[in-house]
Amino acid sequence: MELVQKNKCFDGEQRVYQINSKFLKNPTKFSVFLPSQALEGQKCIALYYLAGLTCTEETFVIKAHAQRLAAQLGIILIAPDTSPRGDDVAVGDSWDIGQGAGFYLNATQAPWAEHYQMESYLIQELYPLVLTSFPVQDDGIGIFGHSMGGHGTLTLAWKYPDLFKSVSAFAPICAPSICPWGEKAFSAYLGEDRELWKAHDANELVKAKGALYHEVLIDQGVADQFYAQLNPALFAESCKAVGQKLTLREHEGYDHGYFFIQSFIDDHLQFHALQLQN
Amino acid sequence: MELVQKNKCFDGEQRVYQINSKFLKNPTKFSVFLPSQALEGQKCIALYYLAGLTCTEETFVIKAHAQRLAAQLGIILIAPDTSPRGDDVAVGDSWDIGQGAGFYLNATQAPWAEHYQMESYLIQELYPLVLTSFPVQDDGIGIFGHSMGGHGTLTLAWKYPDLFKSVSAFAPICAPSICPWGEKAFSAYLGEDRELWKAHDANELVKAKGALYHEVLIDQGVADQFYAQLNPALFAESCKAVGQKLTLREHEGYDHGYFFIQSFIDDHLQFHALQLQN
Repeated sequence: MELVQKNKCFDGEQRVYQINSKFLKNPTKFSVFLPSQALEGQKCIALYYLAGLTCTEETFVIKAHAQRLAAQLGIILIAPDTSPRGDDVAVGDSWDIGQGAGFYLNATQAPWAEHYQMESYLIQELYPLVLTSFPVQDDGIGIFGHSMGGHGTLTLAWKYPDLFKSVSAFAPICAPSICPWGEKAFSAYLGEDRELWKAHDANELVKAKGALYHEVLIDQGVADQFYAQLNPALFAESCKAVGQKLTLREHEGYDHGYFFIQSFIDDHLQFHALQLQN
Repeated sequence: MELVQKNKCFDGEQRVYQINSKFLKNPTKFSVFLPSQALEGQKCIALYYLAGLTCTEETFVIKAHAQRLAAQLGIILIAPDTSPRGDDVAVGDSWDIGQGAGFYLNATQAPWAEHYQMESYLIQELYPLVLTSFPVQDDGIGIFGHSMGGHGTLTLAWKYPDLFKSVSAFAPICAPSICPWGEKAFSAYLGEDRELWKAHDANELVKAKGALYHEVLIDQGVADQFYAQLNPALFAESCKAVGQKLTLREHEGYDHGYFFIQSFIDDHLQFHALQLQN
């Protein structure tokens, strides 16, 4: 694990690390915000943030404006990249497939399967590395994310409820099996058997596995230019059907971008802190 | 004035406009954050933010994390680009001269004089345009900035005390006449007669014109990688000599970038609001 950048920020440190990932078969970067409490060695709660299409480990750090309150609340923030990277890593035909569009799952189809193993990387490699490298409360880890990263958040939360104790999302892709982004990515990464897609579709996972969390928070902009890809109402129905408490807030006039996210980021940090700090 | 981007943000709007500048002889962009109070037509206090080398009208908007508190305090935030832009605009031999490095003055030397008229653009073109286009309190306008934009802030504040009622800066270039960045830019833009440089050097302006503001706030990181270019102590001496109250805060461990700025941005907004809202 190589420290490649470090900047003091709100008495804590915003860092970027690079590791040689076994699963991605390439170097990959992730960013970590360590509040001053963590620098002093106190065990802190932690949040993974999964970003959307075209983003990197930098996006959240620069655009979400989370450090101020994370510093106050004593939250460690971890933001991985959104896909494998490298000259030998397959690229897609546009920005919604391939590098920058890993969809937080393990691809099974060529040429993607060789490197696109984001789920294994996050769960089997990054998660334990973070636990041993930073003063994280091992029962105080939550997950949140945006758009494709909202899909990643909800699916990983439902696949690994022992690892994540709180869940929220901004404008998540709730039902990738039935939206253009998801259909394109899942066809490529998982093949054409749609039955296999269900294991990576938040809406299907909630229906299959039921209520797993005390409460889920989703914020959604009503002026989101990608609203038709996201299906929050369908996800809300599925949550209701299985008794999963969901707070879905629809915000008039807000779009899909980080000006929307920064407007509500504090609510998400507080939502997680309340659940994780018990 | 063409609106090229608009995003809802903290119940206000983050906008980008493009205008055809008479002085820059090219299209130029500036960003404006309008808090909800301004959208409702209330007269608001306003702050100009001048960014540093290599930056654009986007940098402050994305990286400084000012919108949250500006929304609460009802502050309009205006961020211009840092230089003229265009295929016909002279470029320099590196990132610290030419496009992205306008130094907020009017160049007198070829080839720069043709387009590098940032001072006239800001004062004679953008300033009146903002007054007529947005609900700005005309006696409630302040200025702040970073690095080269801190130089621009201090020099424009001392040149135009009737236009700006409050002044602060992050890691400003306080004495450009005696630092490498300034010597390079001033030689190119203003020529080799160093006597002429004094009119564009904050440290010289304060000595010549004396105390003009109730208080000036400067934040400076002690781990700033460009510390030797900035000369805050010299500026503090000059302020002291003329009786200009200056609060110069030196922060251990902070560097020159926006992780430093975001850590103290709220203090600056509050500093200006206190002075402008009387």
